[in-house]
Amino acid sequence: MNFNSLEQSHIDKFVEIVGLERFSTGDSNLELHARDQSHHPASKPEAVIWPVNSTEVSSILRYANDNLIPITGWGAGSSLEGNPIPVLRGVVLDFSRMNHILAVRESDFQADVQPGVIYKDLNTKLRHSGLFFPPDPGARATIGGMIANNASGVKTVRYGSTRANTLRLSVVLASGEILDMGSRSSKTSSGYDLINLFVGSEGTLGIVVEATVRLKGLPAEISAATANFPSVEAAGEAVFEIMRYGLDPASLELLSPECIELINNEKDLGLKVSPTLFMEFHGPLKRYLNEVMDMAEEICGSVGCQDFRPGLATKERDNILSARYELAEMIMRAHPGRSQMVIDVAVPISAYPDIIAMAKSQLQEAGIAGYIFSHAGDGNLHLVFMGKDGDEEEWRIIEQVNENMVKEALSAGGTATGEHGVGIGKRKFMEAEHGIGVELMKKFKSLLDPKGILNPGKLIP
Amino acid sequence: MNFNSLEQSHIDKFVEIVGLERFSTGDSNLELHARDQSHHPASKPEAVIWPVNSTEVSSILRYANDNLIPITGWGAGSSLEGNPIPVLRGVVLDFSRMNHILAVRESDFQADVQPGVIYKDLNTKLRHSGLFFPPDPGARATIGGMIANNASGVKTVRYGSTRANTLRLSVVLASGEILDMGSRSSKTSSGYDLINLFVGSEGTLGIVVEATVRLKGLPAEISAATANFPSVEAAGEAVFEIMRYGLDPASLELLSPECIELINNEKDLGLKVSPTLFMEFHGPLKRYLNEVMDMAEEICGSVGCQDFRPGLATKERDNILSARYELAEMIMRAHPGRSQMVIDVAVPISAYPDIIAMAKSQLQEAGIAGYIFSHAGDGNLHLVFMGKDGDEEEWRIIEQVNENMVKEALSAGGTATGEHGVGIGKRKFMEAEHGIGVELMKKFKSLLDPKGILNPGKLIP
Repeated sequence: MNFNSLEQSHIDKFVEIVGLERFSTGDSNLELHARDQSHHPASKPEAVIWPVNSTEVSSILRYANDNLIPITGWGAGSSLEGNPIPVLRGVVLDFSRMNHILAVRESDFQADVQPGVIYKDLNTKLRHSGLFFPPDPGARATIGGMIANNASGVKTVRYGSTRANTLRLSVVLASGEILDMGSRSSKTSSGYDLINLFVGSEGTLGIVVEATVRLKGLPAEISAATANFPSVEAAGEAVFEIMRYGLDPASLELLSPECIELINNEKDLGLKVSPTLFMEFHGPLKRYLNEVMDMAEEICGSVGCQDFRPGLATKERDNILSARYELAEMIMRAHPGRSQMVIDVAVPISAYPDIIAMAKSQLQEAGIAGYIFSHAGDGNLHLVFMGKDGDEEEWRIIEQVNENMVKEALSAGGTATGEHGVGIGKRKFMEAEHGIGVELMKKFKSLLDPKGILNPGKLIP
Repeated sequence: MNFNSLEQSHIDKFVEIVGLERFSTGDSNLELHARDQSHHPASKPEAVIWPVNSTEVSSILRYANDNLIPITGWGAGSSLEGNPIPVLRGVVLDFSRMNHILAVRESDFQADVQPGVIYKDLNTKLRHSGLFFPPDPGARATIGGMIANNASGVKTVRYGSTRANTLRLSVVLASGEILDMGSRSSKTSSGYDLINLFVGSEGTLGIVVEATVRLKGLPAEISAATANFPSVEAAGEAVFEIMRYGLDPASLELLSPECIELINNEKDLGLKVSPTLFMEFHGPLKRYLNEVMDMAEEICGSVGCQDFRPGLATKERDNILSARYELAEMIMRAHPGRSQMVIDVAVPISAYPDIIAMAKSQLQEAGIAGYIFSHAGDGNLHLVFMGKDGDEEEWRIIEQVNENMVKEALSAGGTATGEHGVGIGKRKFMEAEHGIGVELMKKFKSLLDPKGILNPGKLIP
């Protein structure tokens, strides 16, 4: 598809739609929308627009569609697969001014939000009500970005991904049409499910301008523990057994010794440097959680756990969790002049011990700075490499490890991307994962965005 | 679309594909596939085929597509909206011989099944493993039929609908292509979500030939109670409060006095004849469930509950649940010469007290034999009318009540069908519920089934 570069007439039209203050071609603004948190090369858009309502988004898309101008939605830029990098330039729509919580219906366990709402801000606002929006990717992600990527995180093992917590969407199509999908009813069997096609579509089928999300009750009681193991393989076995016994953890995170060292250096938490599981259980009664914790300890012990520390105080627990959230940034800070590549495979839980063992051996063979951590309870493994910028040989090796890991995950019935999305880096695996399903995806793309203006160069191989 | 009637050359080809034994044009077989459990008029297919594998299904669909022969999938015929009635005749594919449980992977909480597996049979087989497939529509439904309708039931309030419990599908498209979708990984962000487009599509986009479903652990403890109220409105208030307080019932069913009378007559359970809530709580510890039950009793008391009976023994509980399952059949037996129309709206839980009040007043105004029962915890209400066969005036009134209820549900942000699907009867409400979304649904239909051979006359208005 041949897109048009931005001309003065285009600029005049966009300014007419949103006004001068919310349109920019200034280089600092273009720079701020040229890269996400991944290693993928930056690419500056030609302009940035900050829409404030769906009518503006509709007018912008209709015009861009008529004039073959690429449109890429932008939440917080915290993605890890180049998902919002405007590789074919055009206009970035930054949703930071559409950040209003429109309604909280506590009794329905629902909230209506604009796409630019930071999910942590929603949860702060909800705290007094005893409710929360559970998908928890860690970064200061926007809910619009989370929907685009079907984001998940440390609490997904119990509370589900963004998909499972999205009830209703209002989406602007490439044509400018506004489409409302879904229902406020907690269940429906009314016609084709459109909403799930847009969740996880990375802004390539339409632009989300409003969402109704599910809320959950904050747990009455939380118990947390750390467990140290002699090897990541042993920790992987413990993960499998904890899930197999149905202990229903609210978090079950694995951290390699290298991650623990970084956390100790930055946070002075004095954690024991060995493969570590962090686990959290939520429930209505402390004594019930104590029994669950006893079972977890027994399971961990049976596969060689050396040190099981239950009953973490709230502060310790929060410190570990916030360190886990900041881990990606810590890793980047520890390796100046290098960029991160996050491998993001996920497998059925029975395949988890094997994939974690493979990750460790691949890391050792590669001989490049790398870190293993994992939303272990979901079978979702991250292997983070810090590749030297410009060192082609290092990046070749890293890419080879990525391919090896994805191939292994797919052969175990898993997925090339558990939560970061396809973006730029995973496009090449789409055919191996989906077979002729990719052809169907291409048809859906052509149907909804025939000129291909929405986030071009992403997701579809 | 003009379809072809079945000619000898078609018959020869189908017999070539499946053999003589699994092809029939015999009238008794056509009769058996002419109606479901709804009031919608019977329509006999021209032939019935019992495929045994996906290759046969693929060959049948490819040939039918080339020769413009309608194809309608058939599970158990237990649907309630005419969903599998072959209104444009053609061939019915009966999946009763594709009823194998292909694999149970206990440690992954997953099972692979063919579409003709009766979900109750799967649960019987799973019992020793401590696992179960939770969607629970009550009838002897097949899993293929449940996927087609996104079925749900008495345990959906806690464990989700069929959609939430389907991980992977293998589907034969109208072209004969076989498409594998989804992942065995418990989460994925890899490309467009195709699987949810097929779940709930009522066999109009493709025919499911294999599925991987999620399993859950059987609860260690179950507590159940009945609560009697002076009015269905008061019972509706109790439902709202139980959900609002987050008591997380595993079942929360409402039965009107008329239903209780029927159950007493047929089952001799001696239940008190008044609006009744049946509730079940699942959990790991009895003493926790006791506390939950105390809260439920307090809530019910605060809105006028006259008789709260906690601690139902297993046998009492099973009796009530199985009576609930058989209720639709009891209603039919009680009204010979009449057919049932089941209204199936669902609303956000805050709108539940109002919709239940409306159902009661509509029922009184109509003056026709009718029953209110409800998957109350989901905000899903059934109002069952038994209309006299051939009495046009009665059916006009019933249809008017249906329209009134749907209109009210939609204006409350709910849905025209909580679990029975669109089928024949709900097509006329699709535009009111989905707006321009219906145009998109039509486009998906054209894309996947351009000749419209798959279950024609259903779902799409």
